[in-house]
Amino acid sequence: MIQKFSYNPKINTGAVVQKIDASNAPISFFTLSDGVFSYRMSDAACVYGLGEAMRGMNKRGWIYESWCTDQPNHNEDTRSLYGAHNFLLIDGDDRFGVFFDYPTRITFDIGYTDPSLLTVKPADLSLDVYIVTGDSLKGIVREFRALIGKSYIPPLWGFGYGQSRWGYVTEKDIAAVADQHEAAGIPLDMIYLDIDYMDSFKDFTVNRERYPDFKGFIEKMRARGYHMIPIIDAAVKKEEGYPVYDEGHEKGYFCTNENGDDFVVGVWPGMSCLPDFLNPAASEWFGAQYRALTDAGVDGFWNDMNEPALFYSEGSLNAAFDKIKTHEGKTLSALSFFDTRDVFNHLANSKEDYDSFYHNAPEGRFCHADVHNLYGYKMTESAANALKELRPDEPTLLFSRASYIGAHRCGGIWTGDNHSRWCHLLQSIRQMPGLNMCGFLYSGSDIGGFGGDCTRDLLIRWLSFAIFTPLMRNHSAIFTRDQEATAFGDTEVFRHIITLRYCLIPYLYGAFVKAAENNEMFFRPLCFDYEDDPAAREIEDQLMVGDRLMIAPVYLQNTTGRNVYLPEDMTLVRMSGGEITTEPVMKGRRYFEVPLGDVVFFTKGALPLAEPAKNTAELDMEHLTYIAD
Amino acid sequence: MIQKFSYNPKINTGAVVQKIDASNAPISFFTLSDGVFSYRMSDAACVYGLGEAMRGMNKRGWIYESWCTDQPNHNEDTRSLYGAHNFLLIDGDDRFGVFFDYPTRITFDIGYTDPSLLTVKPADLSLDVYIVTGDSLKGIVREFRALIGKSYIPPLWGFGYGQSRWGYVTEKDIAAVADQHEAAGIPLDMIYLDIDYMDSFKDFTVNRERYPDFKGFIEKMRARGYHMIPIIDAAVKKEEGYPVYDEGHEKGYFCTNENGDDFVVGVWPGMSCLPDFLNPAASEWFGAQYRALTDAGVDGFWNDMNEPALFYSEGSLNAAFDKIKTHEGKTLSALSFFDTRDVFNHLANSKEDYDSFYHNAPEGRFCHADVHNLYGYKMTESAANALKELRPDEPTLLFSRASYIGAHRCGGIWTGDNHSRWCHLLQSIRQMPGLNMCGFLYSGSDIGGFGGDCTRDLLIRWLSFAIFTPLMRNHSAIFTRDQEATAFGDTEVFRHIITLRYCLIPYLYGAFVKAAENNEMFFRPLCFDYEDDPAAREIEDQLMVGDRLMIAPVYLQNTTGRNVYLPEDMTLVRMSGGEITTEPVMKGRRYFEVPLGDVVFFTKGALPLAEPAKNTAELDMEHLTYIAD
Repeated sequence: MIQKFSYNPKINTGAVVQKIDASNAPISFFTLSDGVFSYRMSDAACVYGLGEAMRGMNKRGWIYESWCTDQPNHNEDTRSLYGAHNFLLIDGDDRFGVFFDYPTRITFDIGYTDPSLLTVKPADLSLDVYIVTGDSLKGIVREFRALIGKSYIPPLWGFGYGQSRWGYVTEKDIAAVADQHEAAGIPLDMIYLDIDYMDSFKDFTVNRERYPDFKGFIEKMRARGYHMIPIIDAAVKKEEGYPVYDEGHEKGYFCTNENGDDFVVGVWPGMSCLPDFLNPAASEWFGAQYRALTDAGVDGFWNDMNEPALFYSEGSLNAAFDKIKTHEGKTLSALSFFDTRDVFNHLANSKEDYDSFYHNAPEGRFCHADVHNLYGYKMTESAANALKELRPDEPTLLFSRASYIGAHRCGGIWTGDNHSRWCHLLQSIRQMPGLNMCGFLYSGSDIGGFGGDCTRDLLIRWLSFAIFTPLMRNHSAIFTRDQEATAFGDTEVFRHIITLRYCLIPYLYGAFVKAAENNEMFFRPLCFDYEDDPAAREIEDQLMVGDRLMIAPVYLQNTTGRNVYLPEDMTLVRMSGGEITTEPVMKGRRYFEVPLGDVVFFTKGALPLAEPAKNTAELDMEHLTYIAD
Repeated sequence: MIQKFSYNPKINTGAVVQKIDASNAPISFFTLSDGVFSYRMSDAACVYGLGEAMRGMNKRGWIYESWCTDQPNHNEDTRSLYGAHNFLLIDGDDRFGVFFDYPTRITFDIGYTDPSLLTVKPADLSLDVYIVTGDSLKGIVREFRALIGKSYIPPLWGFGYGQSRWGYVTEKDIAAVADQHEAAGIPLDMIYLDIDYMDSFKDFTVNRERYPDFKGFIEKMRARGYHMIPIIDAAVKKEEGYPVYDEGHEKGYFCTNENGDDFVVGVWPGMSCLPDFLNPAASEWFGAQYRALTDAGVDGFWNDMNEPALFYSEGSLNAAFDKIKTHEGKTLSALSFFDTRDVFNHLANSKEDYDSFYHNAPEGRFCHADVHNLYGYKMTESAANALKELRPDEPTLLFSRASYIGAHRCGGIWTGDNHSRWCHLLQSIRQMPGLNMCGFLYSGSDIGGFGGDCTRDLLIRWLSFAIFTPLMRNHSAIFTRDQEATAFGDTEVFRHIITLRYCLIPYLYGAFVKAAENNEMFFRPLCFDYEDDPAAREIEDQLMVGDRLMIAPVYLQNTTGRNVYLPEDMTLVRMSGGEITTEPVMKGRRYFEVPLGDVVFFTKGALPLAEPAKNTAELDMEHLTYIAD
């Protein structure tokens, strides 16, 4: 059952698709006082949710803030990441879900200040709150998901393996990636084009020196079996003569400052303007621009920098130069030196900037800070709506960095810029169920880590997990160590693991589509399937995948095995050296050897496997072998 | 057996106390080519050592750099921390220890570039290398420790609990800490004075407004049972009329720039000079200054900022202001904006500054960069030598942040500024054996984490581990959440855990002194005691403590138990609600409940426990109860 409690929301976020009448009763479970929602948690209560937020699947013991943030240097104490996913699922003496449909900053103190108290504090009391009850955790999720609408389903080839790097500059770089994977016999479906494919980072342009015949290149790569997936950044370079800028400027499609002039921010292209995705006309206009690339044969996109991330604004940069000068020539104490140092550090994504620009939404003019968390969602919606028109006959691959619930209907998300750290591999495992609850089924993390330097063993272990994630992309940053599956020598082990992904696609894609259609989770914590098993409640490093599989990834360096909790008798499936074997294993706490390069997982029933294929186009989805039958 | 291979070292670091003749043969195990030492590791080889370096006890799979660095924001990919501990122990087809006695930057690539290759690259080939062989891991460590001399043994009260915070300003703040712990019945031996006790951060001064009668205050607190432990920073404020500066300047005891003038750096006191601890006369002079505090009754010190940490130098700060101006008014690309932003970020601990000052060592004049890793060691040696004269009748508590092997004879070290993160709790567990190998027995991490905000459960779990670390200090930074054991309400659980520490002191201090006298490790990875047990080799979250104990700390949030590997039958000891119970447990992989507030550990034989005591002075070390007898 869903109850709605309405507190004068100022804007329809678009998250909810079911029409529900608001209750006149006081909100259930919570007390509301001074604009803060409070709930006393029982000692053993687990709190799930918050989408891609950091820390465990059980979110107790920390404070989180929904405020879409470009935060590549996240740690366990990071409060805000790229997405804003305000759904919680409490499993204690009470059992209920709660969704705070609110477009801006909202804080979730889940036993941080007081270990037994959950408090939720929106910036102001203008929101809708939905309380979802049901007779099981899965049932509550299903009900909530019906409220927010069906999840995006990518094309089958979106389940292929993708290779990406900020640092592939020319078409030769891209072709070389294909060559190397082919030479190593490693399946690959997608190669991603990061910002360097554009002309001066201008959206919907292509650098003609680097890609002299872009359309021809896309066709050629398509013929070889590869989909090219370009990045689209949110901001539009401010440059007269650049048609996208000129038209956006003339028609008033950009966010404006207080006086109504285009608000100018510094991002990748330098000074730029922010499309006003909350303005339906601007949204439609921006979406239509994707045609420049779909006309060239592009069939997939990733939307980036749409928190929106701001390096600085015209005004804040000038103010910083002025401020720095006031420190010059003075005797600096340690603390005033830190102030000096931080003048420029505090420019990015500053409160001052977010407070300084405006949107024209159907409901009226909004300061950006009051609707911040909708920006990435509305950018993805703009693209999704347009792509349905531009490519009506087949689904387009689409995913985003920033998001809000609702965006799950438009595309997937990746978990944003992470690092080549073992702890980020574990984090990505733990992020999946929270995302799935909120409808984001097509998701995954940057395999191997975006920032920092990956090692061979980390990439192998990360891939061994990521073969189960719907979005499976290896992505790394410029100036870091190469981390393609072909970059560490001895490519056999990489070939075996990625090949296994392709063999699993019939099961994975089937389970995915079923989850999307039935409003279910593709990845689940064990306790969602074994509610009466107290041991299952504390397992934070295993996941149920679809109806039948359980995975227990290895995420620690220099280990050749791990402890696994089996909530019931299952069949262990082991891929070793390309060979698949099975053995029955019994319920309980067990230790299994998982040498580097082996993939071990567990099945509760017959598992279909396809024959190895070099890409999804060549994948035979009909003739399957069943193991653990 | 120890072999010495000598490659024209420029300076005697002081690390080694045994005189060993250098071999004329080529170095064993390694090949030496182009100044790089290389060793091919067998597949299963573990590599231990590197003192407090990040990551696992087994250091394989990463690259580390010995370069003493003030790095509070460390992550698993951080290459350099506060100490430089160049000892490795390889346990594979070959088994040997190796010590690179080298005073400056040296890189250890332990299977990062090539998973099976260990390469060690000093900045230049001017060092001594010691190869240690033996018939067991423990035997090799013993032999190495004999080479570098006996470890510092603190006074018994150094095993008491200490409370510290950057943010205690006045004597009232300090007295309140004592009051609060007494009110809660929580034992406490030490309260630490961070930088605010000083007058304008000037070493060996006391702020007379905050401490109107410092000597009287120390006496009064001593009478209440507390030792006051002030901080001493490395740099001396440049201020005419401040006797320490005046004398250091006149006598030429500070590090100088190329022209021979005092090199001036910005640290806590603002512009400051760096005592030249490599100059024996300067070292003796600085050490003598501790008298200002020992005369007031102080019997313990912590030396800080002695990497040395530099916020900036006079020259680099001016250059930064000039450089910033060159960016002003220009159209900044994203990358040139990052350059602008980083002008001030790159000031701290810059290569340019470390290249710009000089020491007068007995062997001649050295650029700081060529002897960087000795600075903290030589500061601690300066203090240790002086304190033996100033307080000849009893040991002084002394520990440092920066260190090099050799400093272990002078004092302890703490693991430097860390964060209130569960991963830093795990890291601190893993750092202990590496430190112990290198002689640093009196050690511990900042309990609860220095930076960031601690939660009640994190503090409880961290304390539950730290009751086993010789140095047991709760320390936090200004502007973070209070994290005293009295700060989270319901102090009973804290009282029980810290009381248990005091009950364990007879065992712990006894094991410590034995380890120090016999050149053994107090903390050991399991495989050091169970060399033939392959399962023990991968256990990275349990430790042997002394001869008889094994600990398996809980370091994950929202868990009430954990998997433990028992390499033999043992007795489980459980403290719950202040009550201690025991039960026999059998060899193998087991899961044990460890609810928050319980302490669980394992003993191989009878364990002596003292009666609870409010401090070490009241601890009855004679009348002990034996459990698990």
